[in-house]
Amino acid sequence: MRAVDIIRKKRDGHALSAEEIRAFVTAATAGSWPDYQLSALLMAILLRGMNAEETATLTWAMTNSGTVLDLSDVAGPKADKHSTGGVGDSTSLVLVPLAAACGVVVPMMSGRGLGHTGGTLDKLEAIPGFRVGLCPEELKTALHKVGAAMIGQTATIAPADKKLYALRDVTATVESIPLISASILSKKLAEGIETLVLDVKFGGGAFMKKIDDARTLSQTMVGIGKARGVKTEALLTDMNAPLGDAVGNALEVIECIETLKGRGPKDLEALSIELAARMVRLAGIAPTHAVALDKVQSALHSGLGVEKFRQIVEQQGGDPRVIDDYRLMPLAMKQRHVIADRSGFITALDAEPIGRATMILGAGRDRAEDNVDFGVGAKLRVTVGQSVMAADTLVELYGRDDGKLAAAAEMIQAAFRIGDAPPAAEPLIREIIG
Amino acid sequence: MRAVDIIRKKRDGHALSAEEIRAFVTAATAGSWPDYQLSALLMAILLRGMNAEETATLTWAMTNSGTVLDLSDVAGPKADKHSTGGVGDSTSLVLVPLAAACGVVVPMMSGRGLGHTGGTLDKLEAIPGFRVGLCPEELKTALHKVGAAMIGQTATIAPADKKLYALRDVTATVESIPLISASILSKKLAEGIETLVLDVKFGGGAFMKKIDDARTLSQTMVGIGKARGVKTEALLTDMNAPLGDAVGNALEVIECIETLKGRGPKDLEALSIELAARMVRLAGIAPTHAVALDKVQSALHSGLGVEKFRQIVEQQGGDPRVIDDYRLMPLAMKQRHVIADRSGFITALDAEPIGRATMILGAGRDRAEDNVDFGVGAKLRVTVGQSVMAADTLVELYGRDDGKLAAAAEMIQAAFRIGDAPPAAEPLIREIIG
Repeated sequence: MRAVDIIRKKRDGHALSAEEIRAFVTAATAGSWPDYQLSALLMAILLRGMNAEETATLTWAMTNSGTVLDLSDVAGPKADKHSTGGVGDSTSLVLVPLAAACGVVVPMMSGRGLGHTGGTLDKLEAIPGFRVGLCPEELKTALHKVGAAMIGQTATIAPADKKLYALRDVTATVESIPLISASILSKKLAEGIETLVLDVKFGGGAFMKKIDDARTLSQTMVGIGKARGVKTEALLTDMNAPLGDAVGNALEVIECIETLKGRGPKDLEALSIELAARMVRLAGIAPTHAVALDKVQSALHSGLGVEKFRQIVEQQGGDPRVIDDYRLMPLAMKQRHVIADRSGFITALDAEPIGRATMILGAGRDRAEDNVDFGVGAKLRVTVGQSVMAADTLVELYGRDDGKLAAAAEMIQAAFRIGDAPPAAEPLIREIIG
Repeated sequence: MRAVDIIRKKRDGHALSAEEIRAFVTAATAGSWPDYQLSALLMAILLRGMNAEETATLTWAMTNSGTVLDLSDVAGPKADKHSTGGVGDSTSLVLVPLAAACGVVVPMMSGRGLGHTGGTLDKLEAIPGFRVGLCPEELKTALHKVGAAMIGQTATIAPADKKLYALRDVTATVESIPLISASILSKKLAEGIETLVLDVKFGGGAFMKKIDDARTLSQTMVGIGKARGVKTEALLTDMNAPLGDAVGNALEVIECIETLKGRGPKDLEALSIELAARMVRLAGIAPTHAVALDKVQSALHSGLGVEKFRQIVEQQGGDPRVIDDYRLMPLAMKQRHVIADRSGFITALDAEPIGRATMILGAGRDRAEDNVDFGVGAKLRVTVGQSVMAADTLVELYGRDDGKLAAAAEMIQAAFRIGDAPPAAEPLIREIIG
């Protein structure tokens, strides 16, 4: 089976056989096709598409390019959540303890932030001492003892995805629904889970700008998950404005702890509860969604959730005292306020420039090898629909450099629009696909 | 200007700017983009296309990636012909001497055969002593003295095309009309010619199977040539059956000499005269096509053409005695006949399997680095439309190995179809585009 024949077949719009797809993935993993053949096929896949069967085959081949965790000796239903990424999207830190407090085992593997969107691993590492690099044995110990762990992908998980993702990034072949689906799910399916809830974002701050694309991606991923026997649901959620009020690693950790204490922003709380409840319901712990919601809300309001978060932090080497004393978080000392230039209603608050402004401060990274500054970021004082007076504080910025704070403030000012009337309210969760 | 942004723009179906196209060609020449980015862009170009302006810019950028011959100190109009390749297509050896005998200066640079189609350089090298590797100074001397030269591309001609063609070959990105047009014309425009006649083949033995594709290619190339101020015409010619009666290097040289002596196959003679006459007319040597045809026919029948061929052979170090004594050509000694298995009319004679059969004998090459055997090939004894009796000889094969002769004979037998009635006659030249 020659590479050039497989490329030609996809180029001409034909479906590839399972054997051809496996040859491609095997070659990507082993390095037996040169990169120029891999990238030509990636471009042909992007432009010609893949049907549901091809996409499922690709995903599973990528999963099998590395190790698949065997969690059969860990008691309880295993479930996870994946978000396609947004600004201020820290639901993982809230929902993992809540789902675990309800009896779901959560072996969550996450990534780091890239571009204007943050990453769960960076947020966790803002907690002094927190280790995300657990080996499989340490992961299992954590699951046995605590019922949840939040770690990075080990080197042996889906190596074909590592290779192909690096190539897609430099050949403009990222924006393909089959390739995105396979990349996300190949890693999630390697976790050995039976249940998966997907939070697929759309809007200005999301990777998918249009809800139609987000819906197609959701349907594709739900189809793949189900084809592999994993109970899978997807939520389409709005990412035009940031989620919650905090953008930046330490700031988001503090916000998540506040949420687990029942004092968080309503949007972050509501979405975290909804996602956790869907994990609980699909995992078979509750007979209906209403019962599942009730269980998760009880875990939040009883304090069981924040207690579970404390156990996770302790188990992974973090300092649990941060939960009671936020001064232990490495917040940057310089602050600057962004002020309303007129009175009126906040009609829009664009997530992407806010994400980019926090990158200027050092909260994110342009390239995978960059370091991030955990202590910088933005704290929003207002949300969309709220009325403000001229000179009210809109945002508090945390930084280390006056020049960068000024540049970030200017960018954030432009991300706000203030009008004479409140905008129509749009629900955060738009559709459930499952 | 980042590679990934240029790739993304073409991927999304937008036209590239001249600056972006030049950045791509410069990077291909200098090796400053990795091959995986070049191949991703090639696939995006193949699937998204290029408009006429982009294609012309690409062509000219590829021409300018190397040296462009300056023939301004050679007196007379400079013209060339290019064929997209076929089986038994040896018109160059006939028309170059005829056009030169009429006063056209012909600095022809050709390629070698690949796959089932032959190449002019291989045919010329079948003449003992013939050198195709002239340097630019030797080329100019030949043009001054003889008015024509038939040589290979020097290393400095269109290096971007060498790089991109090698990559296209292994990434299934050959079959793109903009890329084919740019590849062909970038080299021809580097010859410093003012006139170009294109012989664009279609049918089973050609690269383009469908006349519609050949027409689009012709229109594209004529447009590019004219945009560069080169008088350009294209002929669409039928390559379902081989051209002439000989397939194989030495056999085709002999056939061309016979044609220059007025004793060649009618199709080869007619097409060679037509192409030469168009060069003569476009070069301004004749006021009308009819006058040009008359001049070329006179050159043939007066013997001036074969005399010019003798001068070309002598000038390039070949043994001119072959023109009078074909025994000096390196013909293989073993022969095998392919016999008609029934009586009737030849209704089809498929060029591609005949080309492939001569490759089995050693006349062609699968890969650019293979050697060819000048002395092997096939001599057709019948043509399409002719009536035959069972056991008549259809083809004489020349080879060196009985096993290969048997395999080639079997393949050629299958390339013939014999029916009860003659097929409808189809003209060889279908359309003129100019």
